[in-house]
Formats: sequence, C-alpha cells, structure tokens
Amino acid sequence: MMTDNLLNRLAIILDERKQADPKSSYVASLYAKGLDSILKKVGEEATETVIAAKNGEPTQLIYEVADLWFHTLVLLSHQELHPQAVLDELDRRFGLSGIEEKANRNQH
Amino acid sequence: MMTDNLLNRLAIILDERKQADPKSSYVASLYAKGLDSILKKVGEEATETVIAAKNGEPTQLIYEVADLWFHTLVLLSHQELHPQAVLDELDRRFGLSGIEEKANRNQH
Amino acid sequence: MMTDNLLNRLAIILDERKQADPKSSYVASLYAKGLDSILKKVGEEATETVIAAKNGEPTQLIYEVADLWFHTLVLLSHQELHPQAVLDELDRRFGLSGIEEKANRNQH
Amino acid sequence: MMTDNLLNRLAIILDERKQADPKSSYVASLYAKGLDSILKKVGEEATETVIAAKNGEPTQLIYEVADLWFHTLVLLSHQELHPQAVLDELDRRFGLSGIEEKANRNQH
Repeated sequence: MMTDNLLNRLAIILDERKQADPKSSYVASLYAKGLDSILKKVGEEATETVIAAKNGEPTQLIYEVADLWFHTLVLLSHQELHPQAVLDELDRRFGLSGIEEKANRNQH
Repeated sequence: MMTDNLLNRLAIILDERKQADPKSSYVASLYAKGLDSILKKVGEEATETVIAAKNGEPTQLIYEVADLWFHTLVLLSHQELHPQAVLDELDRRFGLSGIEEKANRNQH
Repeated sequence: MMTDNLLNRLAIILDERKQADPKSSYVASLYAKGLDSILKKVGEEATETVIAAKNGEPTQLIYEVADLWFHTLVLLSHQELHPQAVLDELDRRFGLSGIEEKANRNQH
Repeated sequence: MMTDNLLNRLAIILDERKQADPKSSYVASLYAKGLDSILKKVGEEATETVIAAKNGEPTQLIYEVADLWFHTLVLLSHQELHPQAVLDELDRRFGLSGIEEKANRNQH
C-alpha cells in the first residue's frame, strides 16, 4: 500500500482542530461556521487557481493550489471522510499500485 | 523528507501523457486543447464538489474531489510544475515535517 | 416601475420550455436533468467568464456573460422564481427607481 | 429596440463610480484593486448561488443571483463594456425582438 504521508498527517491535524477554539484557530472557525462556509472557500480557491494560472505566475499558482487542496481536506474532515479515500480512487483509476509493483519488480 | 508517493507517481504518468496521441488519451486531449480547457475542468469539478457535498453523498464527494485533484495535477503538469511543490507549501504552513520529526523522536 | 423587458420576456420563454420535448430543446433537456445539471452550468459559465476576461477578448467576454446570465435565468425558472425579483433587489440596493423618478422630474 | 432600463441605469452608476474615492465606495474599491479582485468576486458569487439553490431558500437565491449579476456588471464596466451588448447577444439567440414585434402586432 502506498501512503501519501503528508496529506494523511494533515488530515489528522484537521481532525484534531475540531476540538480547538474557533477564536484561536482558522480551521476551527471554518468548522464552527459550517459546511456552506467551507464550500464557499473551495469555490473561491478554485477561481483563484484559475486566475493564478492565467497570470502565468508559478509561485502564485503553487500557493493557490495549496489553498484549494487544503480547503478540500477541511471539507473531507468536516464530512468525516479521509483523503486516503480520494487517493485510493485515483489509484483505482490509474492503477498506480500496479505501477509501483511493476517498478519494484523492475528493480530486481 | 516526506514523500506523497501516489501524487508524485501520478505526476510522472501525466508528464508522460504529453507525448501521447490526443485521440487515444483523455489527458493528452486536454493538453492539446490547451490551458483554458484545463482551467474550465478545474472550475467545473470545483462546482461538482460543492454540489456533491450539499447532496451529502460520501461516495459522490470522494469521486468529485478525486476529479478536482486530478485536474489540478494536469494543470500543474501543463505548467511544468510538480505536486511536490504544493505538498512542500502545505508542509511549510503546517510544519508537518517537524511533526514527523517530533513523532519519530517520541518513538525513541 | 421600471421594466427590464428583455429579461422578463426571456423568462416567459424559459417557463414555456418546461412543456417542451427534452430531445428537441436544450432548455427542456436541462430541466429534465434537474437542478444539479443547471447548477453545474452556472459554475461552468462563471469560470468561462473569468477565463474570457483574463484573455482580454471583449466578444468572448460578452458571449460568456450572456451564457452565465442565461443559465441563472434557467435556474430561476426551475425554482419558480422570476428575474424581476432580482432586478427589484438591485433596485432596492441602488435606489434606481428613485433615479428614474428624479430623471423624469428633471425632464419637466 | 427593447431597453432593459434598470441594468442600463445601473451600468451608468457603475461607470460614474470609477471617479469615486475607493475608501468611500465599495465599487470604487473593487476598481482600485483591479480585474483579478473583480473576477474573484464573480467566482465567489457563482458558488454562493449554487449553495443557495441547494439550500432551497428562495430569498437567499434571489440575493445571491443579484450579487452575481451585480459583479458581472462591475466586470463589464471595468472592461469598458456595456450590459446592452449582453442583452443584444441574448436577443440575437432567442429572437426576442421578433417576439416583441409579434406581440405588438397581436395587439392590433
């Protein structure tokens, strides 16, 4: 099994923030405002990703994609879902585990 | 350094598809249509993520987030950028490497 | 009362299309697919408006804004709402009837 | 020619606000921030329209569509374009002037 450590670690942090004070944590404040506020951020960051790409500024684009992925992780956590399920879906589509197996085999 | 194997492997596949026949590969057809077509897909999938979340259907939501992440990976590849740069940005914000280090230290 | 004739006439046409054959009418096919399909189009056209504006192509931008307004009119019709309610809300915010009254008064 | 008075009057106001102090006028502050800020609002309001429709709250939906149309009018004004061009495009697609002519003829 392949593990995407960073996303899974971030998911653990986001789950923990559900207990945090909304006044002291941005993520906790998003949970407190509820689903619609999280979804507004997802839509907002998608638009900012489009704008950054059209501006042709790599640093801005990396930053906006990070914002977009981050808010989808907050959304998943809010819905009691885990990013590994998304990675598994991508794996299923692209047979990436198979590629890993093949890559490992090729090393021998 | 933490590696998010699956996203990085998918990025390699996406880079390879740049050489593929647009008639036989969906990804190659997106590259052939150009940046605006990729950005339309990013916007489209963000909206479908919002709708799936409002529908409260976990399977649909996982599927749409996979679509959204996938098309942002296509966008990064098209712009000659790498998902590791996005993961590094998330790492920088949340000090996830630090957490890993600390976790490793705690094991001893 | 100010009337925005064209939008209101278009709303009448859209309401009539609810009776049309989904196979012969694009609008009827959207109604048949349901709310989520209409909302996907609203999100799609908003992204295309952003892209057209970034491309700095006036004709493309006019076309995409027309698409965006059109699909919001389809949405309103689907929800049994009327564009005049939107125009009234804009009127309320900007006091446009007042401006009209003043303009009329100035003519005398 | 059909005239959509309210949108055209609003366009005049928006054009005038280009001279206003960005500190005292929301619209002037949007112009001062530039195109990307206006486009972010268009994307944001489109997402809020989708959310309001999924919530099935007519008053919220009317409000969000007004916000969306308003920010597209700001966009048009910023790009030195006029809403009448959008209305003309809708007219061209749906032959609404023809309908008006026919309606007028029917009155006789």
